Amino acid sequence: MSAPAVTRELAAFVAGSQWRDIPAEVRREGVRGLLNYVGCALGGCGDEAIGLAIRVLMPSFGAPQAGIIGRTERCDMLNAAFLNAASANVLEYDDTHLATVMHPGAPVAPGLFALAETRGASGVELLHAFILGVEASCRVGMALMPHHYRRGAHITATCGIFGAAAAAGKLLGLDAVRMNWALGHAATQSAGLVESLGSMSKSIGVGNSARNGLASALFGEAGFTAAEHAIEGRYGFAAVASDTVDLAKITEGLGERWEILANAYKPYPCGVVLFPVIDACLELRKRLTGPGEIDAARIAQIIVRGHPLLRERTDRPDVGDGRSAKVSLQHSVAIAFLQGAAGVAQFTDAAVADPAVLALRAKVTAEDDPTIPVESAFVAVRLADGSSLSEHVRHGRGTPGRPMSDLELDAKINELAAFGAPFIDTPALIAAVRDLEALGDAAHIMRMTAPG
Amino acid sequence: MSAPAVTRELAAFVAGSQWRDIPAEVRREGVRGLLNYVGCALGGCGDEAIGLAIRVLMPSFGAPQAGIIGRTERCDMLNAAFLNAASANVLEYDDTHLATVMHPGAPVAPGLFALAETRGASGVELLHAFILGVEASCRVGMALMPHHYRRGAHITATCGIFGAAAAAGKLLGLDAVRMNWALGHAATQSAGLVESLGSMSKSIGVGNSARNGLASALFGEAGFTAAEHAIEGRYGFAAVASDTVDLAKITEGLGERWEILANAYKPYPCGVVLFPVIDACLELRKRLTGPGEIDAARIAQIIVRGHPLLRERTDRPDVGDGRSAKVSLQHSVAIAFLQGAAGVAQFTDAAVADPAVLALRAKVTAEDDPTIPVESAFVAVRLADGSSLSEHVRHGRGTPGRPMSDLELDAKINELAAFGAPFIDTPALIAAVRDLEALGDAAHIMRMTAPG
Repeated sequence: MSAPAVTRELAAFVAGSQWRDIPAEVRREGVRGLLNYVGCALGGCGDEAIGLAIRVLMPSFGAPQAGIIGRTERCDMLNAAFLNAASANVLEYDDTHLATVMHPGAPVAPGLFALAETRGASGVELLHAFILGVEASCRVGMALMPHHYRRGAHITATCGIFGAAAAAGKLLGLDAVRMNWALGHAATQSAGLVESLGSMSKSIGVGNSARNGLASALFGEAGFTAAEHAIEGRYGFAAVASDTVDLAKITEGLGERWEILANAYKPYPCGVVLFPVIDACLELRKRLTGPGEIDAARIAQIIVRGHPLLRERTDRPDVGDGRSAKVSLQHSVAIAFLQGAAGVAQFTDAAVADPAVLALRAKVTAEDDPTIPVESAFVAVRLADGSSLSEHVRHGRGTPGRPMSDLELDAKINELAAFGAPFIDTPALIAAVRDLEALGDAAHIMRMTAPG
Repeated sequence: MSAPAVTRELAAFVAGSQWRDIPAEVRREGVRGLLNYVGCALGGCGDEAIGLAIRVLMPSFGAPQAGIIGRTERCDMLNAAFLNAASANVLEYDDTHLATVMHPGAPVAPGLFALAETRGASGVELLHAFILGVEASCRVGMALMPHHYRRGAHITATCGIFGAAAAAGKLLGLDAVRMNWALGHAATQSAGLVESLGSMSKSIGVGNSARNGLASALFGEAGFTAAEHAIEGRYGFAAVASDTVDLAKITEGLGERWEILANAYKPYPCGVVLFPVIDACLELRKRLTGPGEIDAARIAQIIVRGHPLLRERTDRPDVGDGRSAKVSLQHSVAIAFLQGAAGVAQFTDAAVADPAVLALRAKVTAEDDPTIPVESAFVAVRLADGSSLSEHVRHGRGTPGRPMSDLELDAKINELAAFGAPFIDTPALIAAVRDLEALGDAAHIMRMTAPG
């Protein structure tokens, strides 16, 4: 075994981490990550795919020990982890770790809340475990990029499971040996294909990453042995998962650099390259109309100029449903102008079929400009009276140069709850998550997400 | 999409297959495969890993609708599929599809019996589905060999899930579209590492292949959509799983050539290269002693001559436990001479520690001979009185040239049941499986495997 024993090193780091070692800014980002997770699950819990998944799994539900965010059903903790992860990811409104384009929140958080409900955990314990789980997921992913994703591995699922196992293992108090086994069980269960994106099947991969990550930790806790070198071994995860492996990425600067600080929150439930475009459109709309209704007849043309990647990924003038609208420049521009918003309600099948949206999206054209960075965009509006106005956004909201503020994140959670679970006392829930470090019983958060 | 739509073609074949299209010899091999599965699960059900897995999963057990072979616990069908697959594989006594070195029985069969217990199925329906599931597993595996396994994918788990999904989907009566989705869900859940072999973690991969394959079919049944080109797509399973892909292997001659006819049953729970060696030793023992006890002091030396692969894989004179003894030439030779058998009882930790075994294995030497095929072996015994005798086995039992007879298979099942579940009425169980085509309720088999 010449490869460094990164599985064991990562396990030892997670098992040995102390709360006092976690810097204040990292703790704060952990709270924001959990808030974003809870909000996304509230928004997604009514999705058709989640309802179907519950119907399929209900005959196998165990004792109702764990909640499903925003829903009345309760079940065993493994099924709860699956369903909450699927909910939190189904709207494509996740957190995003930019170096890997992974969404760590959905895999890592659900098992922790399920454990809080069944075994008990304080707010600090849950937050600590979440931060470590995000760290483990992102670092395993970084070691495999870029080939892992390019070949077709859905990295949120394939690497999220390591974070789910590490986080659950931390909450269970595993020692380094059992944590090593937990990571080994995660390695042998890692799965998920990019090909599944665009179908409901994506949710199975993400759900499994949370479910099987939690199971990995429970198996490790019980003394169920695993390969010590599960990641770096000759027939281990890294060899199977990527032709470009840099194992040092898993361990270098552990405890000094924190990947959760590079975890961004989507301001809009659509492709990340669209963020600066939507920002510009919302600003132009304000300048055109103030707070009132827009008169779309005044608009003759909308011209978007951006990095070539923008057109490559999103030049889709004729999308027919909400799912594909999430990667359509024309739809995104039209709804931003017409509705002054680009939230989940703007990416539904109904929003796509709206005649006013169809009319305005036909007026949108796009131009490539390789000198414009991918996080920037220019949008110009030519009006029927011959005048025009334009807007330049240097850093789209939710990109590293312009992260979502706490107020913006709260607004996102409010929007998601109003969309998917309007019966929730959202302000109280947000306050409770923000104050997580003071919470004696982390399961309180789950109770606040239940209807009635 | 330039690659042939093999996912859809395979789904259409499985969905459209009629019982009358299944040749008699294929039906017969299906029965033998199911018999071997039930026997292996009876033998493995008391293994430490299975007991631990039940302890871990029990808090998440759903309603007791499905049995665990040889055990009193009952649970939901997904957990039952997991545990029965793990049991059937844990002793390394499986069936073996020689072209892929895959063990299709453990992944494919458990979901079918769980469905028989919950939804109902006749013997013919279950047998038909099993045959098709074995076909699907083996063909997906053949399309990815040799690189898939060589890189580190545990093919029994990674490809077994396709068979589990296809078989369960057949029993559920899925149409071609839903069967395609079931295969898509299997593709995005495919997982398992060779690195995990030698630890308990192997059982998680095999258990998941059965559990998640069954879940794939249930999700497909519910209308949960998946990628149509899940295997052959640009970011699909084949691209992720192997650098040597031959998609035609999945579809050519479907319904004409049957892979289950190339599925062999292990005569001994150890490495396949040891089979002719053990055969020769058992024969020599008979010639030395007749049915009586052997006087090991008479033996001065035992010389084994075989293909170089034999020594490469099994020259392990100093093994210390039952698991590693399964790949030790010296241990296997010693127990065959001393005990006149090489079953599960001969590969326990206790058998390895027996002083008589330790003494005799020290007298075993091995020689390479590249002219000897891997399924053959020469064994010579030099006695203390200076005389010697030797035996040449051309085709080891359980190899293609010398398949296990029905009587030998029955003896194997008896041995397994006596080892792991001595309370079973084994002759009645064997008779019921042999007469599966006449059985109105396939769940009857499961009832016969329950204690008491």
